[in-house]
Amino acid sequence: MPLPKSFTNLVNNLSILPGVGEKTAERYAYALCEKDINEIENLSSALLDFKKNIRNCSICGCLSDFDECEICSDKGRDESTICVVEDSKSVFFIEKTGKYKGYYHVLGGLVSPIEGINPEDLNISSLLNSRINEKTKEIIIALNPSIEGEVTSMYLQKLLEKKNIKVSRLSYGIPMGGDIEYLDPIMISKALDDRKTIS
Amino acid sequence: MPLPKSFTNLVNNLSILPGVGEKTAERYAYALCEKDINEIENLSSALLDFKKNIRNCSICGCLSDFDECEICSDKGRDESTICVVEDSKSVFFIEKTGKYKGYYHVLGGLVSPIEGINPEDLNISSLLNSRINEKTKEIIIALNPSIEGEVTSMYLQKLLEKKNIKVSRLSYGIPMGGDIEYLDPIMISKALDDRKTIS
Repeated sequence: MPLPKSFTNLVNNLSILPGVGEKTAERYAYALCEKDINEIENLSSALLDFKKNIRNCSICGCLSDFDECEICSDKGRDESTICVVEDSKSVFFIEKTGKYKGYYHVLGGLVSPIEGINPEDLNISSLLNSRINEKTKEIIIALNPSIEGEVTSMYLQKLLEKKNIKVSRLSYGIPMGGDIEYLDPIMISKALDDRKTIS
Repeated sequence: MPLPKSFTNLVNNLSILPGVGEKTAERYAYALCEKDINEIENLSSALLDFKKNIRNCSICGCLSDFDECEICSDKGRDESTICVVEDSKSVFFIEKTGKYKGYYHVLGGLVSPIEGINPEDLNISSLLNSRINEKTKEIIIALNPSIEGEVTSMYLQKLLEKKNIKVSRLSYGIPMGGDIEYLDPIMISKALDDRKTIS
């Protein structure tokens, strides 16, 4: 007997989750059999709600339920600093430290010639053209210390050189090859303290 | 800035999946950001469809989209044998071997005094009262070779002793402490060959 259709259909659809193969998806489906209809309905509508509401902030590019994220619409933050990050995960993670009071700019990736990601594929032009203004005093580059992160950082540094703005990066408290979201807030906090002027 | 509401709501709801904590649920949610609306809608409706359609077969207790599962409604199978299993997973797994042609009976668990699961909590009375009839020649007990499996097996054996029916169990080709669903079909197939009469 093959597995019930509704079961295999769910398994196939659960396989869109990262790292979830057939075996894991089946384990999830068996577990969902035991759940209340309410829990399943909640998950089902949370998925639709999520896709309906979540978007990238029109200013910084961070994930948000609104057209303008909570940070960009908060006029009380420090306008002199913009922290450039790879993705929204980094924003939420740096926010957890409670240390940084400026604004953010989400690149949406890193320059990677191997993967065919060029600078023009990233959210860079808006940083230069509309984010940076006369009030901007410092750009903090907070990218992962990987090869792609370094390449992107160097590229940004070169572009920003002409702007007469201080450019800094997170200090090397971060272990090379690590991932910002897996560090503890204290370490991120230290790296913010020890940031080093690069131009 | 806290994470967007629709994001945390999805993360909380994804945490009903087994072994999925906040970190994994967040990883899933970030990945779902990148998916097409179609994929999300399909997953969402697959969940509802699943919960709407999936049920336990009214005869053997196996998961099915119908009131009577495909095996129980297949009159061409061998009526003389009933294979008793812990759960539906075992049915689908034994079916994969293509070796067994009889019917199944799903207990819905194993006797476990520690977890407070008594024989009367399991689907045992229907096995004795309505499944076994004059055509039944053999009951194959195919439970995991764990302590709970052995206790349940002994309990069933005692009940079936009076019925004058051959009772067998899968041979110990299965490693002790293992789990039926993780064995390869050849091993299950061998264990079906080497089954041993216990009363």
